[in-house]
Amino acid sequence: MDRSLAEGVLYTDQYQLTMAQLYHRRGLAERPARFEHFFRRYPDYGRHQAGYCVNAGAAWLAEWIRTVRFDDASLDQLRGHHNRDGEPLFGEDFLGWLSDVGDFSSLRIEAIPEGRVVHPNVPLTVVEGPLALGQLLETSLLNHLNFQTLIATKASRVVEAANGGNVLEFGMRRAAERGALAASRASLIGGAVGSSNVGLSHALGFTPVGTHAHSLVQVFMALGEGELGAFRAYADLYPDDCLLLVDTINTIGSGIPNAITVFDELRSNGHEPIGIRLDSGDLAHLAVRASAMLDEAGFTEPIIVLSSSLDELTVWQILNQITIEAPQYDQDPNRVIARLVYGAGTRMATSDGAPSLDGVYKLVAISDGGGTGEWEPAIKLSDSPAKVVNPGRKKVWRIHSARGTATVDLLALADETLGEPLVLHHPSTPGVTRTLTAGQVTGREELLEPFDPWTVVDEHEAVEAGRQRRNADLERLDVGVRRIVNPHVYHVSLSEGAWRLKHDVMARVDQD
Amino acid sequence: MDRSLAEGVLYTDQYQLTMAQLYHRRGLAERPARFEHFFRRYPDYGRHQAGYCVNAGAAWLAEWIRTVRFDDASLDQLRGHHNRDGEPLFGEDFLGWLSDVGDFSSLRIEAIPEGRVVHPNVPLTVVEGPLALGQLLETSLLNHLNFQTLIATKASRVVEAANGGNVLEFGMRRAAERGALAASRASLIGGAVGSSNVGLSHALGFTPVGTHAHSLVQVFMALGEGELGAFRAYADLYPDDCLLLVDTINTIGSGIPNAITVFDELRSNGHEPIGIRLDSGDLAHLAVRASAMLDEAGFTEPIIVLSSSLDELTVWQILNQITIEAPQYDQDPNRVIARLVYGAGTRMATSDGAPSLDGVYKLVAISDGGGTGEWEPAIKLSDSPAKVVNPGRKKVWRIHSARGTATVDLLALADETLGEPLVLHHPSTPGVTRTLTAGQVTGREELLEPFDPWTVVDEHEAVEAGRQRRNADLERLDVGVRRIVNPHVYHVSLSEGAWRLKHDVMARVDQD
Repeated sequence: MDRSLAEGVLYTDQYQLTMAQLYHRRGLAERPARFEHFFRRYPDYGRHQAGYCVNAGAAWLAEWIRTVRFDDASLDQLRGHHNRDGEPLFGEDFLGWLSDVGDFSSLRIEAIPEGRVVHPNVPLTVVEGPLALGQLLETSLLNHLNFQTLIATKASRVVEAANGGNVLEFGMRRAAERGALAASRASLIGGAVGSSNVGLSHALGFTPVGTHAHSLVQVFMALGEGELGAFRAYADLYPDDCLLLVDTINTIGSGIPNAITVFDELRSNGHEPIGIRLDSGDLAHLAVRASAMLDEAGFTEPIIVLSSSLDELTVWQILNQITIEAPQYDQDPNRVIARLVYGAGTRMATSDGAPSLDGVYKLVAISDGGGTGEWEPAIKLSDSPAKVVNPGRKKVWRIHSARGTATVDLLALADETLGEPLVLHHPSTPGVTRTLTAGQVTGREELLEPFDPWTVVDEHEAVEAGRQRRNADLERLDVGVRRIVNPHVYHVSLSEGAWRLKHDVMARVDQD
Repeated sequence: MDRSLAEGVLYTDQYQLTMAQLYHRRGLAERPARFEHFFRRYPDYGRHQAGYCVNAGAAWLAEWIRTVRFDDASLDQLRGHHNRDGEPLFGEDFLGWLSDVGDFSSLRIEAIPEGRVVHPNVPLTVVEGPLALGQLLETSLLNHLNFQTLIATKASRVVEAANGGNVLEFGMRRAAERGALAASRASLIGGAVGSSNVGLSHALGFTPVGTHAHSLVQVFMALGEGELGAFRAYADLYPDDCLLLVDTINTIGSGIPNAITVFDELRSNGHEPIGIRLDSGDLAHLAVRASAMLDEAGFTEPIIVLSSSLDELTVWQILNQITIEAPQYDQDPNRVIARLVYGAGTRMATSDGAPSLDGVYKLVAISDGGGTGEWEPAIKLSDSPAKVVNPGRKKVWRIHSARGTATVDLLALADETLGEPLVLHHPSTPGVTRTLTAGQVTGREELLEPFDPWTVVDEHEAVEAGRQRRNADLERLDVGVRRIVNPHVYHVSLSEGAWRLKHDVMARVDQD
């Protein structure tokens, strides 16, 4: 499969191209237009729901924008597309225009940085420039941003459930094929400390993590050396990196005792083991038992890695169960929990329960073409008021309350001066407002920042910066909003100006 | 991000490399071993469940195998991996061995062809060859096969629900980033007739599908030409490919009447419209109304494309509702249904409800190294009998019943002669057997075929062949197994020989 073709400038939906040709023919291709990208709903995993999302994906979108071109190979593919009458679907005039334009460099982009906590209906990415190019960018933009934001959000929830424990990403084998790479990266932004994905980790400047699988034990069993032989071979080769998977045969009866035997041998040779991994069974119970057995054998430091279908709910339940069960084995639950590390795989890499984010990319304004630079707000009506797009050129303000937490994300017009007191309008229900006095506001910040895809960023720094933004934003997020199940609803509001414009445009369209 | 690094031979999990080095150091790296890939459970989407899967992904796995190498760039990355003491994790002896081996060409692979209907615990892919290489292949193999099989299965269900209607794949914007490509391909194998994904469609030799989005109408509204202006512009440019999206403002009140106006103009100019698309609201109701309005205006041929959160359940419900509701509008439901086309997006491309397939890759036998070529069966015990791997070198037979349908997939030993009558053992419950007399068996076929990744296949032919195999296998599958909700369970059994071997190995391990 020709990946350079499939992942190049034709990494898009067909209708973007048919519309772009239409704009070209009508002389509208270069008319300035503004598109906004936002999502409508937090992921709902069924029994639990997100109260925030973690923004991610912009750096890889930037790389795509930077590297694709309307090159001859791509245009030849379009030239070969014939309609049902056998005529070329795309004319040479349009293909020539694409070739002349060359790339997306005439678009100006603003974006909320990766790692920031974000909410529904808030423009996360704003694209302004030639109408046809803005339209042609839609599919790739959504494809790159929807998925990484979805996974960074899921990872952030697992990390929160782990309550300070380290989370590792193990999802590659069942992730969405090449989407595994984006999933690993987004997990790191969402707070995971490492990934088993070798190539991706090296490409991002992280050290991949992993030790051995059940198959190692199986090999030694089949060859007559048994589990103990496998553990000895592993410890012999990796004496300073020895972490043993103890559930191939029987965790309590065989795996942990054999691991302790090998750990004793290691120690007598001057090495300290890293720990063990549990990959099946009642992980909470086994963690308590394993911790006790390790302690009793004098191994109080080694960690216990848990894996097998982990997500935020299972991690949360494991911690709860350990809190109750550890005392029954004369164990301090906090000590057991402190040595845990969580290997989250499939469920994190696929955002199990909510495998997509409903991000959209909507036209919100277009130049009137009259040479005066006036913008016409654009709207899509809908039977559902909550789905009516907020029109016009806007800024996003995050307002901090007297408690220091973020209290509302406010969509205001780009040229609007915010008043005092600040009136916040519900985005779709008329008459529902909330007023913040000057004393209730300790600060405000603009979330959208200029975003230049042509600035090459260091891959490692981008991920680290994203993770730090995520951590900082979570500290300023109300604990109720961070709740894993049934979270408190964070407010996203319209300013006076944004609300009035929306109403005016809706009234005008209804009259048409 | 260096994709050639991330997607090359290091497209794997870290533990595969640490185990491979161990095998190398212990002189086991080139010991012949056999791994089998299978899945344990059909996807369970919550309110509905799969009763079969459609196998997919092998051609792209083959391409990965064919194109990756243990090249200097990859080995340099491994060389730079230091353990917690700052020592290189991988020795030059191992890296040198990888460099000498070069690639995966010494592995022999068998596989069930793409598009075939497959079932749990049946080896779909069998890898035999040097132990370390077989181990190193695991992650990429599972990553490529799990996801495409998952999506081909989902697509097959949507296509079955559409009951003969054409299904189009529209999922790129919310798919798992680059996994969108695999999702599009797998959808085509599962029975979709086209995809909106431009680059991927061209790369596979398909014509991408798509017309226009709401934004086209928004642009013309903002510029004062309204929905009718947008439709006219579209029909003017694409008179022989005119399919109009009618729900931007008001489907019944504006969209369909405007479309009919433009269709009349088209016809008076000698062109026939293709149809309309409905993307929101009560799709079944709107389809009935739209069909009636089109008929009344003399447009009996144009199709009605439905989109918006379609999956197998929504499609099924739409057809049911039309069957009930069409007569209330004096419409023949079969005529309404016959003109429908289904654009399935996010839910198909992400396998909503079950976003992963639990495919695994297990060591089942290893050479005893004695020079006699004897194989030692390998096993992984588990607390759950259903999860104990079936050991040994096996073949897979599909047995056809007197009714001509497939009645059981039988795992037998590679050198076993099947008896008459044929005794089928439940794979995990002792004593549960079923016997087929010679008269009850009309035929049997081996499912696994030799698979040479170095044979380059035509991308288009591979997809078409897969789709045809899917169609042929579904025709021979019991209708109860094909049911969308709560399907009948297809039998997967062990032969006498395979059952006896499993029992012997389990007894031996328990004694160890």
